[in-house]
Amino acid sequence: MDSSQYERLKYLISRLVSYIHDYARETRLSMAEWETAINFMTEVGQKCTKTRQEFVLFSDVIGLSLLVDALDHPKPKGATEGTVLGPFHTDDAADTSNGGDINSDPDGDPLLVVGKVLDMKGRPVEDVAADVWETDSHGFYDVQYANRDGPHGRAILHTNANGEFWFKGIVPVSYPVPVDGPVVSDPIMIQSARLTERSGGLSSCHGNHPYRPAHIHFLMEKDGFDEYITALPLRGDPYEPHDPVFGVKASLVVDLGKVDQATAQKYNVKSGIKLPEHEFVLVTNEEAAALRREEAEHVLGSDVDRPVPAGK
Amino acid sequence: MDSSQYERLKYLISRLVSYIHDYARETRLSMAEWETAINFMTEVGQKCTKTRQEFVLFSDVIGLSLLVDALDHPKPKGATEGTVLGPFHTDDAADTSNGGDINSDPDGDPLLVVGKVLDMKGRPVEDVAADVWETDSHGFYDVQYANRDGPHGRAILHTNANGEFWFKGIVPVSYPVPVDGPVVSDPIMIQSARLTERSGGLSSCHGNHPYRPAHIHFLMEKDGFDEYITALPLRGDPYEPHDPVFGVKASLVVDLGKVDQATAQKYNVKSGIKLPEHEFVLVTNEEAAALRREEAEHVLGSDVDRPVPAGK
Repeated sequence: MDSSQYERLKYLISRLVSYIHDYARETRLSMAEWETAINFMTEVGQKCTKTRQEFVLFSDVIGLSLLVDALDHPKPKGATEGTVLGPFHTDDAADTSNGGDINSDPDGDPLLVVGKVLDMKGRPVEDVAADVWETDSHGFYDVQYANRDGPHGRAILHTNANGEFWFKGIVPVSYPVPVDGPVVSDPIMIQSARLTERSGGLSSCHGNHPYRPAHIHFLMEKDGFDEYITALPLRGDPYEPHDPVFGVKASLVVDLGKVDQATAQKYNVKSGIKLPEHEFVLVTNEEAAALRREEAEHVLGSDVDRPVPAGK
Repeated sequence: MDSSQYERLKYLISRLVSYIHDYARETRLSMAEWETAINFMTEVGQKCTKTRQEFVLFSDVIGLSLLVDALDHPKPKGATEGTVLGPFHTDDAADTSNGGDINSDPDGDPLLVVGKVLDMKGRPVEDVAADVWETDSHGFYDVQYANRDGPHGRAILHTNANGEFWFKGIVPVSYPVPVDGPVVSDPIMIQSARLTERSGGLSSCHGNHPYRPAHIHFLMEKDGFDEYITALPLRGDPYEPHDPVFGVKASLVVDLGKVDQATAQKYNVKSGIKLPEHEFVLVTNEEAAALRREEAEHVLGSDVDRPVPAGK
């Protein structure tokens, strides 16, 4: 660890200690309550495995994952918004040619996904690696099956000279976040998180449930551009207004169109199948760094460079 | 869970979410840093066993255990101060008559402990159960031995009509908090916590180490009195000024006196052995509740009864 990393870590821990102490003082935390919290954290840690990260789920349902994404990957107006990565990304998706079929689930409702990637000036961006993943027709990702023999429902596409990528998949379906662990074993966690994030109190929570609306994940990478983590929820999903991990943003919701004759011919698919289309507008590293610094200065003022800069 | 408990839990979680979000915003937490924190918490949870509680250690080294004790068991001026329970209390200590020998370690330096328990008006309190525990001569508690066959170095004494209790033991020794887990695997955690708690910056941290100064634990219970958790560190211990869990309070440090002839006769021990003596002043439930409420009102103002009272 170099000295600036060390200073940064010391700063993070010192502030954490200060915040935790302030929280305990304000809430007049009792010993019994703190013991309950310690037992909860212990259970959360012990629920984690190689394919199950219960602390990520905790972070997701309290809205922190989304906040940290917004802090670390700020988006200027006009850029595509980011959202939660979720726990189901893997590093073994196969490079796939445009038009490839990423999902072999025969029970799925077939769809064609057409994306176009632009920069902030509206210019197509070529050779973006678009890592995509989605559920099968039962609402499970491949990693949730004990007998997984390789990647299913995921692939890495590359944009062409027009900034386009496209692939065949199935219509993803809504699914519950894991409910067999300490984080969502009781609806209180979700309710309380929601109370904090949204106004309206308990009455707005009648829709509490662990279901994420159906969506397709995208992780886009290209040298010179800020890493892009986003997901497109499908309009009309009954759970779309009440995502338990706060991952839905209005600008990301896509319509499930239908492939017409011309599009069917162009992409060599059957006409009539479902068609989500989306334009992704990426920001460069410089644009992201400048905005990150601007926001940090807004919060930290002249302390922005003490003890270490927030930007990279 | 009754409805007031439910309201209290909702309040605690809502405020927690708010504090965590504020912390992330102020520190401009990055995704990589948050992932490091998630991995840390996961390791902490997975280090826990029936006899090892790494989250309690975390709470101890960031000074939170001590703070929660102070919030939940406030002490008026004149009362004996509380301190950390630590992870080594058990529920199987044997009821022992005054004068009993609680520690069979033949390598230990023998001592006589003489305590007197008073209420805030200076009146002796009879029949207080004083649960005591201490290390052996190697700095270990009995629960730290894999082949533990029952309680050693611990017992429950009862005060007589004069409020007195006494027992034979050995001089406890300093010992490191567990250093083989994620919490104290690196000195940064202790350093940073100390930076927050004490002024003086890094220069005051040259003495960083994982050693708790030698001390004897006391947990005192009697109907009508607030549960009493405290510990007496021995004056002169080299680690006394730098306890890694902030458990030392000046009023609790005891001198290791020596048993004179008269005392030796009175308590039927050899003269010349070590003698810590202490007067414990306990507070009643009513005194503690009144002070807890007063402090909560000071912090919460008219919100003290919304959403639920902090007192019991």
